[in-house]
Amino acid sequence: MPEIRKDYVSDTWVVFSAARAQRPGAFKKEWSTTDPAKCPFCYGHEHMTPPEILAYRRNGQPNGSGWWIRCVPNKFPALQVEGEVHRRVSQLFHSVNGVGAHEVIVETPDHDAQMSMLSDFQVQEVITAYKQRYLDLIRDKRFKYILIFKNHGEPAGASISHPHSQLIATPIVPRRIMEEVNAVNRHYESMGGACIYCDIIETEREEEVRIVSENEGFISLSPYAARFPFETWILPKAHEMAFEDITDGERTPFAAILRDVLGRMYRILEDPPFNYYIHTAPCDRKETKYHWHLEITPRLTETAGFERGTGFYINPVLPEDAASILTEGVRIADKAP
Amino acid sequence: MPEIRKDYVSDTWVVFSAARAQRPGAFKKEWSTTDPAKCPFCYGHEHMTPPEILAYRRNGQPNGSGWWIRCVPNKFPALQVEGEVHRRVSQLFHSVNGVGAHEVIVETPDHDAQMSMLSDFQVQEVITAYKQRYLDLIRDKRFKYILIFKNHGEPAGASISHPHSQLIATPIVPRRIMEEVNAVNRHYESMGGACIYCDIIETEREEEVRIVSENEGFISLSPYAARFPFETWILPKAHEMAFEDITDGERTPFAAILRDVLGRMYRILEDPPFNYYIHTAPCDRKETKYHWHLEITPRLTETAGFERGTGFYINPVLPEDAASILTEGVRIADKAP
Repeated sequence: MPEIRKDYVSDTWVVFSAARAQRPGAFKKEWSTTDPAKCPFCYGHEHMTPPEILAYRRNGQPNGSGWWIRCVPNKFPALQVEGEVHRRVSQLFHSVNGVGAHEVIVETPDHDAQMSMLSDFQVQEVITAYKQRYLDLIRDKRFKYILIFKNHGEPAGASISHPHSQLIATPIVPRRIMEEVNAVNRHYESMGGACIYCDIIETEREEEVRIVSENEGFISLSPYAARFPFETWILPKAHEMAFEDITDGERTPFAAILRDVLGRMYRILEDPPFNYYIHTAPCDRKETKYHWHLEITPRLTETAGFERGTGFYINPVLPEDAASILTEGVRIADKAP
Repeated sequence: MPEIRKDYVSDTWVVFSAARAQRPGAFKKEWSTTDPAKCPFCYGHEHMTPPEILAYRRNGQPNGSGWWIRCVPNKFPALQVEGEVHRRVSQLFHSVNGVGAHEVIVETPDHDAQMSMLSDFQVQEVITAYKQRYLDLIRDKRFKYILIFKNHGEPAGASISHPHSQLIATPIVPRRIMEEVNAVNRHYESMGGACIYCDIIETEREEEVRIVSENEGFISLSPYAARFPFETWILPKAHEMAFEDITDGERTPFAAILRDVLGRMYRILEDPPFNYYIHTAPCDRKETKYHWHLEITPRLTETAGFERGTGFYINPVLPEDAASILTEGVRIADKAP
């Protein structure tokens, strides 16, 4: 019997149906990669991007080679950084002009690398760059939210295969963040001051079956109502409101667990396309009850008319099975339903 | 300057950014089709599906050839038709067992056809089959909502290319329907009994710029905050709660406008993959203020980490441009931003 589960915090429902894994075309993943000769993120091609905003290099000139992390404006930005924010409301039409920031963080000069193959140092430097760009942009009062995210593989929306992350600052707080903030506040009120994410961690540790890995600072788990096969969340075990407050001491275990989970996916799911993104408190830092986390969503299935029409998801892999596969290292082809 | 627009009814925001249309890989669409020799929806292959629920044929035996419309259970169902509905709530875990129906409506025996190429009669017969299956399933009190939808093309989630629609009956009312129902009720209360969808039609007719086509019973338009390039809605011009109440007289103009809009997309966008789905009132028929409609969403862009992380959408094509292109018949390659 299939099962329909509700997300811990939002009204998102997910249909878990093993039968869907057997239909033709399920779990397809093939994609093309960028020719290094034409890659704007490789050494010697720095002129192919807008001038850099930030780079980590020991020697050399800005916009030259020798960097190990490089941040540039997105050449095809979703939002535009100049101008003031104006809201317009007229009859049924509500709009805000598209002021924001859209940046690219190149994670390594190595065109063919993957985050899970990078050194501990390099992944820590990626996180340092995330934090540094975040702290710079949060001072801009036009921005209400800053989303750091990564698209890996063409099916996950990556138009360039060289490893990179992105950052988009928006003039409104996104819907999914507001849903989580509202749920955090409701839970706080109804449960005598408890944090719903701390309660998720505690409950999932008791249940055990959906935990993927854990270290001194962080835990990774397959959420109870995972929308996608092998969706995995990474949460700080201590109650921490915002990603940008991450300390140097926390950065080491965060980089380690991120590499660990992405490495498990790379080996066991055979380099799946994926997206990840960091959910943190809105820029005004008033939502002190929030608990930041990172969500990784592999792209192994397509959403279709049912998902678009309902807002539900169909997931052929139960999170208990996903956690077991990611923990025991059993290949999906040998074990999946 | 990009623009961020809010949907008429829900808290869905869409970033309209022409720059995104220019990045590598935008507007890709290539896919493979099903070999007719292995197609379960072709004549002579009726044994490849579960036994039929409904078929329109003049002569011949059930589960033989000679039909022009054929409905069968989905061989890989998301939900299971036997059993009672049980809800479970424990700590942070809410679930409902996966009771429901999942059917396939084969729209024609012609493997290579498209809905826009079918005769008026045949499209009317598809709609008749939709209604007939709907009216049969709504009598089952376990079902709270029935979604009729279509996936066209592999990138839109169609695992078989032979023209077909699907129907899923769910034991809970989907999130997107509840958002619309709530917005309808709020608008009714605050606007002295007005229907928000009737007001959308009236306002969009005054604005003119987002109308695609119109006939005696129906109107098609690109919504103000279209989530996807060339998203188009078809609405009955009269205030009608539920699709299943469609009369024989309304079926003719509904089939005509559906064929018209899909034909425009086929010719001008060169056979894009798409999903469509019908939004109608929940099965209990208590939401009498609802106004049913059909939403067509072509799949020309990928959603990625930004969309997954925020719940926002990025659309490189303004609905005014989409409506103009679909109306004037100008090819996207010659006119798009």
